[in-house]
Amino acid sequence: MEPLKTLWYEEDTDSIVFIDETLLPQSFAVSRCMTVTDLGTAIKTLAVRGAPALGVAGAFGVALAARRSAETSFEKFCRQVLEDASWLSATRPTAVNLSWGIQRVINRMLTEGSVREAKEAALSEALAVAREDALICRKIGQYGAMLLPDHSTILTHCNAGALACSEWGTALGIIRSATEAGKNIRVIACETRPLLQGARLTAWELDRDHIDVTVITDSAAASLMRRDEIDRVVVGADRITRDAVFNKIGTYMHAVCAKFHSIPFYVAAPVSTFDIVNMESEIIVEERGRDEVASYFGRTTIPDGVPVKNPGFDATPLELVTAIITEKGVLSSPYNIRNIVETSNNKSPG
Amino acid sequence: MEPLKTLWYEEDTDSIVFIDETLLPQSFAVSRCMTVTDLGTAIKTLAVRGAPALGVAGAFGVALAARRSAETSFEKFCRQVLEDASWLSATRPTAVNLSWGIQRVINRMLTEGSVREAKEAALSEALAVAREDALICRKIGQYGAMLLPDHSTILTHCNAGALACSEWGTALGIIRSATEAGKNIRVIACETRPLLQGARLTAWELDRDHIDVTVITDSAAASLMRRDEIDRVVVGADRITRDAVFNKIGTYMHAVCAKFHSIPFYVAAPVSTFDIVNMESEIIVEERGRDEVASYFGRTTIPDGVPVKNPGFDATPLELVTAIITEKGVLSSPYNIRNIVETSNNKSPG
Repeated sequence: MEPLKTLWYEEDTDSIVFIDETLLPQSFAVSRCMTVTDLGTAIKTLAVRGAPALGVAGAFGVALAARRSAETSFEKFCRQVLEDASWLSATRPTAVNLSWGIQRVINRMLTEGSVREAKEAALSEALAVAREDALICRKIGQYGAMLLPDHSTILTHCNAGALACSEWGTALGIIRSATEAGKNIRVIACETRPLLQGARLTAWELDRDHIDVTVITDSAAASLMRRDEIDRVVVGADRITRDAVFNKIGTYMHAVCAKFHSIPFYVAAPVSTFDIVNMESEIIVEERGRDEVASYFGRTTIPDGVPVKNPGFDATPLELVTAIITEKGVLSSPYNIRNIVETSNNKSPG
Repeated sequence: MEPLKTLWYEEDTDSIVFIDETLLPQSFAVSRCMTVTDLGTAIKTLAVRGAPALGVAGAFGVALAARRSAETSFEKFCRQVLEDASWLSATRPTAVNLSWGIQRVINRMLTEGSVREAKEAALSEALAVAREDALICRKIGQYGAMLLPDHSTILTHCNAGALACSEWGTALGIIRSATEAGKNIRVIACETRPLLQGARLTAWELDRDHIDVTVITDSAAASLMRRDEIDRVVVGADRITRDAVFNKIGTYMHAVCAKFHSIPFYVAAPVSTFDIVNMESEIIVEERGRDEVASYFGRTTIPDGVPVKNPGFDATPLELVTAIITEKGVLSSPYNIRNIVETSNNKSPG
């Protein structure tokens, strides 16, 4: 079976093509962004989502802004692209990869001296980001697969799959790699309220690849752990600061329960997810809209006037994380986040 | 404001009247059961739900079966009512209160010698069960209110409110009693997937009574605990065996997370919820239908063919429970479940 591709840049038309994830699993359709505004909308509505995919989308977004700019003065061109990039970056403030992808293409572009060269450089760098993302996921998969026992059941939360990357996936990439290596892996996918990325996306993409997957409500996970039905927890990450992993709301609950039941808790993420500057306390967690929780496909589930708290992410302190699986290898406690990122930065062109 | 009444027996028409909870919060409507089959359907569809309410419903159900029986032979009459009662009891196997309410009215009825007397006795006993339920909730409320600090935030799961009883509530009864005593209490209601009893019912009934309530997704609870935003957890119970509390799926996760954060975890339940015979391992947890998780108001959220695990309840070992609040007082570790039930049985007519 062809590996699932989630988003790509179409050079002929200068547009970004992506699977519209808001429509899954009811229908499978690809959409197209012709402008940075289109892309921002796709990101805000979570039609494009997932930390690594946002890195690629950010990179593509800068390329798109550059390629579609009509400015002829290099200075004005740069100012326009930077404005677009800054707007795009603010569409998902907690996810570090989006601004990472944007910044990487911007940095590359600014080394050029003309509009024409900058346009070429932006596209070439963005395509490199996408290519590298696919390779990175394969490497994460290979490192992580070694940690999954044969005949084991893996709990995952949200979607850290091919649909969260350009392809293969991080957490689900590990499951794919383990399966490809001949291991018998069963997956428990938490539905992941409010937007059900686990039910809609993880279940869809694993089922597509004939990997055994069962969906549960998020709150059922702990009781499965108690009954020895979970061998490992594997999740993705949106940002890893020096002290904590930011990921989809609910991740922290699984980490606490995994600790309580002595179940290894793994985070799968590319090095681009690391934020070596900040501590948990410095990160503002995106508070998302009331309707995501209070209204379900147009049907009201919470009485009018009753407030809702809907944080998009939570923070899991590194003490609860057994290992972080990156493309550079497997990190475990004591985590030297700064070290791995600096080693990696020296090697990559960004 | 009038206290909210959830279900009652209408003697003129020999029928059971109840708030149809499947319609809340979109609309408020009362329905009527003319037969035990109607009542069984209302219980199976969760139009009538909640452990204490099921006790009252079971009692009313036996009265209804008795009152509507056309049998004139006492033996045939008893056989018919027992058959109806046994069928009714099986509609929710995990909840101990349903069979408790049924059994109590049956026992009373069987002390009589004629159909006429048995019909009278069944009704009178069923009405006593309902009256006592209301009194029990008030007592639980009074005992529990003392445990809630002024200006505190209480996390609750599912609905252990007036809507789960004949009135007042158990977990929410405690919150009502604390509020009535002048304490400033704020409630965080977990929405409680899959059927959203927290979002739909708890939010609705607390908002109706002007108690400050905010709804969150179930998986956000742990991260609020981490940020010191939860002072106490208070939940109800469907069955308390000698070693564990069975309650809505998700309760165990909150108990583990409360323990991890050193937050008191309280269970509010009438003595009728205790099952002194069984251990956790002997209880079969009701596995509910796939569609509750996979299809949301008719919209598919999980790809066809992907299996779902949907246990209705989980078991929280008593070690994780700080106290159980009953109408007889507050129990804490070491729990002598048998003792409290036997003391209570000597006093009550069942």
